[in-house]
Amino acid sequence: MAESATSAPAVVTGGAGAIGSVLVHHLRRAGQSVQVLDNFSSGRREFLADLAHDRGLTIREVDLRSPPPLEAFRGAKVVWHLAANPDIRLGTTEPRTDLEHGTIATFNVLEAARKADVPRVAFSSSSVVYGFPTQFPTSEAYGPLLPQSLYGASKLASEGLVSAYAHCYGLKGFIFRFANIIGPTMTHGVIFDFVEKLKRDPHRLEVLGDGRQAKSYLWVEDCVDAMRTVEAKATDPVNVYNLSCHDRISVREIAERTVKAMGGRATIHYTGGDRGWAGDVPQQLLSIEKLEALGWKPTWESSEAVDRAIAAFARPPAG
Amino acid sequence: MAESATSAPAVVTGGAGAIGSVLVHHLRRAGQSVQVLDNFSSGRREFLADLAHDRGLTIREVDLRSPPPLEAFRGAKVVWHLAANPDIRLGTTEPRTDLEHGTIATFNVLEAARKADVPRVAFSSSSVVYGFPTQFPTSEAYGPLLPQSLYGASKLASEGLVSAYAHCYGLKGFIFRFANIIGPTMTHGVIFDFVEKLKRDPHRLEVLGDGRQAKSYLWVEDCVDAMRTVEAKATDPVNVYNLSCHDRISVREIAERTVKAMGGRATIHYTGGDRGWAGDVPQQLLSIEKLEALGWKPTWESSEAVDRAIAAFARPPAG
Repeated sequence: MAESATSAPAVVTGGAGAIGSVLVHHLRRAGQSVQVLDNFSSGRREFLADLAHDRGLTIREVDLRSPPPLEAFRGAKVVWHLAANPDIRLGTTEPRTDLEHGTIATFNVLEAARKADVPRVAFSSSSVVYGFPTQFPTSEAYGPLLPQSLYGASKLASEGLVSAYAHCYGLKGFIFRFANIIGPTMTHGVIFDFVEKLKRDPHRLEVLGDGRQAKSYLWVEDCVDAMRTVEAKATDPVNVYNLSCHDRISVREIAERTVKAMGGRATIHYTGGDRGWAGDVPQQLLSIEKLEALGWKPTWESSEAVDRAIAAFARPPAG
Repeated sequence: MAESATSAPAVVTGGAGAIGSVLVHHLRRAGQSVQVLDNFSSGRREFLADLAHDRGLTIREVDLRSPPPLEAFRGAKVVWHLAANPDIRLGTTEPRTDLEHGTIATFNVLEAARKADVPRVAFSSSSVVYGFPTQFPTSEAYGPLLPQSLYGASKLASEGLVSAYAHCYGLKGFIFRFANIIGPTMTHGVIFDFVEKLKRDPHRLEVLGDGRQAKSYLWVEDCVDAMRTVEAKATDPVNVYNLSCHDRISVREIAERTVKAMGGRATIHYTGGDRGWAGDVPQQLLSIEKLEALGWKPTWESSEAVDRAIAAFARPPAG
């Protein structure tokens, strides 16, 4: 008997995005029907193109700055709320972006979940809620949380909303503080930028900052696997988990690996300064002890994930 | 030469409110001209009535859900952003209230400060950002921050916005995590409620919960003094401080003190349960080590502040 997406066990906001589309594929392989809500500003229909005839999947174009249609939520067992502005830098020049596409969108999703009696909401937060932490690796209990960007502020705001809805209305909440998540569906980020720059000019790569910024990079399939592990196993009213691997890699090393993979002809120029842009966090290393206590391990560490991402993007530059 | 409020060194949002109006009096006594922005939903003109002919004070009726007039901010040295929905319980039945009057209002105030080049923003957060902490006294470094109410979520969201604006645009930020602030200008809260109930029925006092909820109560003049101390002395880009006294007092003891002060004729009835309402935080005790390191001490501890507040409200009940 065919599944019906009209009673979807899962709603995925941002389901056409870099991470959401991978989650949708995982959920479909697990036999769950899925409702995708996406505004297609950074999400892409091609990421779900192979599921075009899948009757277990419904895709709706929805702008979450307004309350979404409740019928998309009715009967759902869980909402995976991944929709957001993915470009941290944009918030500095357009401060309303993260308020509207982050905080207000999360509020509208939680209201829909409450009204439609969805019992579980899982939310993609970020390590940027830690601001510039003074402890590495940084655990989920670190405070005070002083985000450096409007994007980080909207992630912290959304965490608070998930917590309040969980405690006031009996939802179960899951909060994932992501490291840098990378994979073939990326549409922004440092590796994507380096590859694009080298395609335009194979002889010169400009790097923002001094290249010493160092962060963890988690492969997107590992990320989705960790999300599903936490959602399946964590039992508190609100469950906050860092999602990362064990090591980190510097921007300098990423630049050198990208240049090498793309033919090795480019010289690298650093703009200087300890961060790439206002609001950038130069150092990041997350404790994943809490996640590992659930029995989860990453398949790939940062350098392996970076090499896989470069390979997915890089083709020999023209000229 | 008379001061001109058109170049006010201080903007006070919520300046007609229970705490804001006391701050305004302090600032005027210190010779600072003041622009008050208030929507007068819980603020009251009578709290500033004695300053009606004060040329150093300008009062504007402003709804901060929309961007406020920039001319109110031009020339200001500091914005004290105290405007908010003061009723934590309201958020449970009207979830949009705290999003709009908390988070969005804070965003609009920060945007105005940025556009008008105001270098300092001081914000009244709350101990409710800690949710149900597991450590007492709770320090500013406690985490994760899992607020229990929509009000708490809006305070956490606003803290994140202050931090992001400080780091992205070079504002200096001051975040005050208030204990329960009490004084003669209160228009809500447990003591206000008890006195009002006893005025209506001097024979019976119903208390929400089992009466064992215990929190710290800071006298409003002490609160304003601590705010001004932090704003004058703290030097980080973002400065987070608990504002409280050293001890706490139970709801049961507050009920008994209120009944006694109002004639002692009422019997007290407890509705039961470990908290007064969904979203209530039953136990609160804040570390004020960081505040004391600035040389500040409270004049009154919780029980003294409670007795002063009861005395300010209680008149012999009719009948």
